[in-house]
Amino acid sequence: MAAFIEPRILKGFRDFLPSGEIARRDLVEKIESSFRSYGFVPIDTPALEYTEILLGKGGGETEKQIYRFKDNGDRDVALRFDLTVPFARFLAEHRAELTFPFKRYHIAKVWRGENTQRGRYREFTQCDFDTIGSDSAAADFEILHIMRNTLLAISGGDVIIRLNHRGLFNRFLSRLGVLDASAEILRTVDKLAKIGREETLSLLSQSVGNSKAAEILDFIGIKGGFEETLVAMTAAAGPCAESERLGLIRSFMTDAGIAGSVVLDPSITRGLDYYTGVVFESFLADLPGIGSVCSGGRYDNLVGLYSVDQRSPLTGVGASIGIDRLIAGLESLGRLKTELSYARTAIACAAENSGGAYQALAEKLRKEGIPCEVFLDKLSGDEKLTKQFQLAEKKGLRWLIIPGAENPLSGALTLRDLAKRENREGLTPEDIVGIVKKE
Amino acid sequence: MAAFIEPRILKGFRDFLPSGEIARRDLVEKIESSFRSYGFVPIDTPALEYTEILLGKGGGETEKQIYRFKDNGDRDVALRFDLTVPFARFLAEHRAELTFPFKRYHIAKVWRGENTQRGRYREFTQCDFDTIGSDSAAADFEILHIMRNTLLAISGGDVIIRLNHRGLFNRFLSRLGVLDASAEILRTVDKLAKIGREETLSLLSQSVGNSKAAEILDFIGIKGGFEETLVAMTAAAGPCAESERLGLIRSFMTDAGIAGSVVLDPSITRGLDYYTGVVFESFLADLPGIGSVCSGGRYDNLVGLYSVDQRSPLTGVGASIGIDRLIAGLESLGRLKTELSYARTAIACAAENSGGAYQALAEKLRKEGIPCEVFLDKLSGDEKLTKQFQLAEKKGLRWLIIPGAENPLSGALTLRDLAKRENREGLTPEDIVGIVKKE
Repeated sequence: MAAFIEPRILKGFRDFLPSGEIARRDLVEKIESSFRSYGFVPIDTPALEYTEILLGKGGGETEKQIYRFKDNGDRDVALRFDLTVPFARFLAEHRAELTFPFKRYHIAKVWRGENTQRGRYREFTQCDFDTIGSDSAAADFEILHIMRNTLLAISGGDVIIRLNHRGLFNRFLSRLGVLDASAEILRTVDKLAKIGREETLSLLSQSVGNSKAAEILDFIGIKGGFEETLVAMTAAAGPCAESERLGLIRSFMTDAGIAGSVVLDPSITRGLDYYTGVVFESFLADLPGIGSVCSGGRYDNLVGLYSVDQRSPLTGVGASIGIDRLIAGLESLGRLKTELSYARTAIACAAENSGGAYQALAEKLRKEGIPCEVFLDKLSGDEKLTKQFQLAEKKGLRWLIIPGAENPLSGALTLRDLAKRENREGLTPEDIVGIVKKE
Repeated sequence: MAAFIEPRILKGFRDFLPSGEIARRDLVEKIESSFRSYGFVPIDTPALEYTEILLGKGGGETEKQIYRFKDNGDRDVALRFDLTVPFARFLAEHRAELTFPFKRYHIAKVWRGENTQRGRYREFTQCDFDTIGSDSAAADFEILHIMRNTLLAISGGDVIIRLNHRGLFNRFLSRLGVLDASAEILRTVDKLAKIGREETLSLLSQSVGNSKAAEILDFIGIKGGFEETLVAMTAAAGPCAESERLGLIRSFMTDAGIAGSVVLDPSITRGLDYYTGVVFESFLADLPGIGSVCSGGRYDNLVGLYSVDQRSPLTGVGASIGIDRLIAGLESLGRLKTELSYARTAIACAAENSGGAYQALAEKLRKEGIPCEVFLDKLSGDEKLTKQFQLAEKKGLRWLIIPGAENPLSGALTLRDLAKRENREGLTPEDIVGIVKKE
């Protein structure tokens, strides 16, 4: 025997036990089903990529957090830290094989060596969906429509989407004569909800002076109904295509009957550099405090870094669902699936030489769409059945089928309802299928 | 603009384009649905682990292939190269939180820096399912039952399982007085199909001499019906519990009506060291040449390395489905799903200001369980509709809904059958739901 090795897991990494994994899959399956219903298709890319691909232009925080190493062939490689950069590489590489507009989703693990003290994980699931190759308002709107319907399906409560347009904000900054400081201003404004009005004003003042900082705060503070807000924003920024785009998206919302779910909010800017058009965040109406659970926007050339042909950029619009945040939120609302198994029915082990007949009986239920476990061991002790009941309860089952001494396929069966602690005797397999299907 | 970076992927790694990813998911979803119907539950573990956990006792080939590095906290870490070792660590760590027998499945990526010249990938999906904590014949049999049903469901053809018992083989080697050389003999015999009888004999002779090598080849060459083979094997090895176990599993097969799918084959040994009981491989009857698509066996103490308590080992039995091999096999049989999308229906874009109404119309279909894409752009040129037909055909769709100039929800719609190249005009959304559902 080799020396004992302590079974431990890396800090910031998690095991998923069955109940947690079933809840996570339930969420992901609902999300996928929604994406698929819109004609979005799945892709996958490698977990490992060349570091130069992932770091691209190079990025301070990212570079510090990335899992990077030399592989056995001395290649400089790294684990992906998001799904956006690999998607850009994928698009540049496979452009000729794809049909555009290309609507894809990708749900996969990513890795970041983040500070775990902030409650962050170093391995987590990202869930991205994007439409590439259409600059239309219909593409922007479709992403919002998917966000709303998907979040409704998984949260069981109302959803509020906060929408803005970066281009419109930049028009306003241009009028103000501070467009050069746009990136910094956007990042500062993005922190407004976190750091508050006073500190935002102070930070903005350092960049553009007191008076313009106040004007910026006035602009992002515009409130009211969608049309009212749009009129005020347009007045401040000047009439422009960006304002018309927001108006068109608004008319789509009205036509589709979802106008009540979307708020025009000039303070939404998103921190990321690559957005150029609409940007949006979304919140669970019952739990706005956990922050945005799905965010995104429009970008004008995702593949630029990997494409020699700069004349034909690929515009796109997309969003990302924060699976971990959603799970935490749904759990606190008591709306997370809490099953221990997909099976709610099992067959007790009354005789150890009947394993074949029990599987044949279980198969009758499975063929009717009823998952059915088979207990494998005749538990010892005086009260054998009590022990099987206990096992069934520990497994969170609803029904336990108790075969008699005779062949379980032809003999009479007893069905234990573990919720009501009642037995029904003398049943056929068909009787049991009927009872279990009905409940 | 930063310098251009060539979009390239690491050798031995793959992108999955939509058609390939849809096929892979279709397979995985059928497999998961089968596992779930038996009450098997999913778990997940991190892609990265401490290297000492993964390498355990240390293993020559594995150590050379593993992706190992120092993380930013100077920890010696590595990407998992299989799902068995992380599962052993998981069991040792979470033993108190689990209910036994514990029936779990795990489908996830693993990484090995293998020689890609042999057509191997460095990132691939493993699919393991195991029952831990039952030493019963019923547990052995259940794994075989799942293998058969799952492979039938995904392959659409017959399945042959080849079964043996390592313990019975060791009894025979013990009688022969060569039990000490068991590990080496097992590995040599495992190569029989690859290297042929002559070379196997020659290799065995080097270990145990010519006469015993011939006896071993005679033993593993025993052929015939299950009972006949079992009698001959028992005669050579002596009556024992292992022989009785095989007999009991055989009676289970007969009771469950699957005896015709299982062959007792004393030449099946499996190369891996940790098997101690039954071992098995399985083959597609239509394509035996691609080798075993699902293999496994019983082991007597998976957690030994990570558990201080050596008095309570965790026995188990399980198998692993070779997803990549299955995909290649099904593709060559023309039985792989070849869809380009989950949606077979789309709405053409007749007017660019109707994006909201088109989504509302699509939603009527989606609510009836019909995935429906919305085309986003009014394509330019004289023959606009022809271009939308072409796009629909490129996307592999069957139906294209063509709205008129009026509101698509109340006005008359045209439905294009892209397979038959026929139009039906003057339809309501409800008419279309009926037609699409019927086909």
